[in-house]
Amino acid sequence: MKVKDLESLFSHELKDLYSAESQITKALPKMIKKAKSAELKQALEEHLAETEQQIERLDQISAATSIKLQGHKCKGIEGIIKEGTDLISEIEDDEVLDAAIIASAQRVEHYEIAGYGTARAFAQELDLPEVVELLDQTLQEESDADKKLSELAESGGLNEQAIAANA
Amino acid sequence: MKVKDLESLFSHELKDLYSAESQITKALPKMIKKAKSAELKQALEEHLAETEQQIERLDQISAATSIKLQGHKCKGIEGIIKEGTDLISEIEDDEVLDAAIIASAQRVEHYEIAGYGTARAFAQELDLPEVVELLDQTLQEESDADKKLSELAESGGLNEQAIAANA
Repeated sequence: MKVKDLESLFSHELKDLYSAESQITKALPKMIKKAKSAELKQALEEHLAETEQQIERLDQISAATSIKLQGHKCKGIEGIIKEGTDLISEIEDDEVLDAAIIASAQRVEHYEIAGYGTARAFAQELDLPEVVELLDQTLQEESDADKKLSELAESGGLNEQAIAANA
Repeated sequence: MKVKDLESLFSHELKDLYSAESQITKALPKMIKKAKSAELKQALEEHLAETEQQIERLDQISAATSIKLQGHKCKGIEGIIKEGTDLISEIEDDEVLDAAIIASAQRVEHYEIAGYGTARAFAQELDLPEVVELLDQTLQEESDADKKLSELAESGGLNEQAIAANA
């Protein structure tokens, strides 16, 4: 595919996000299964439900703009998920495992924050206000999910538990 | 390598960031060469200089904590850079190229924001205030670089130029 204008670049961004979300819906259930704390399991389960809604929003955008979402594999999220999976497989301690799952999930969130931020900026320039609104909803959810994970790691004391378990 | 406690996980985070920064110092000069607008070239050049300082900070942390930084390849940033390189190679229009370079660079920034945020949280739990301070400086720079790129894309009208060029 040759990218010759902003519409093509916007279309590429949407395909990339669609592929990212699809990969995330496959990765999250494995993280949920591995997570030890009930709070972390619940946060990831909620985010899985949100991710499914985010895919629906991309489908709505596709219907409104006639942009096809299939046919691209997002290498960025593929690398991030592979890295997280490799790390998690190396962990022996339960509390450390939760801290690593959070670290990996936050990398995923930040990839999406960057991607949806870019897509929203392109949609604004292309004067597609309804698309901007849909992308904005998802961007807000990704940002909230990232903050929730930080709170779980910091205030929830997961990291402190990880130290205590090995003190 | 088996990760058995928070120290090991912190050590893994630092290795991952060190590998990411090293890969970024190789990728940025190619982006600078491809960028068309003088402002974007300058912003990326400034960020390359910052990246070199950020590597020095990781070296300082390594000296203070005796954590070796070598021996790990960050697959997350590898995927993000590969994706950006592939995209940029598909672009025919100069202004669209700049918009794509910004999109790719912001994914890189967000990977680092997530990684340094995690590393800083671990350093806090491990009671390493000087390390927290160093990681915090870098985190602030990454966050500022991301904002600068958003400003360049949105206020600088790069995206508008990308539309105008193809109107």
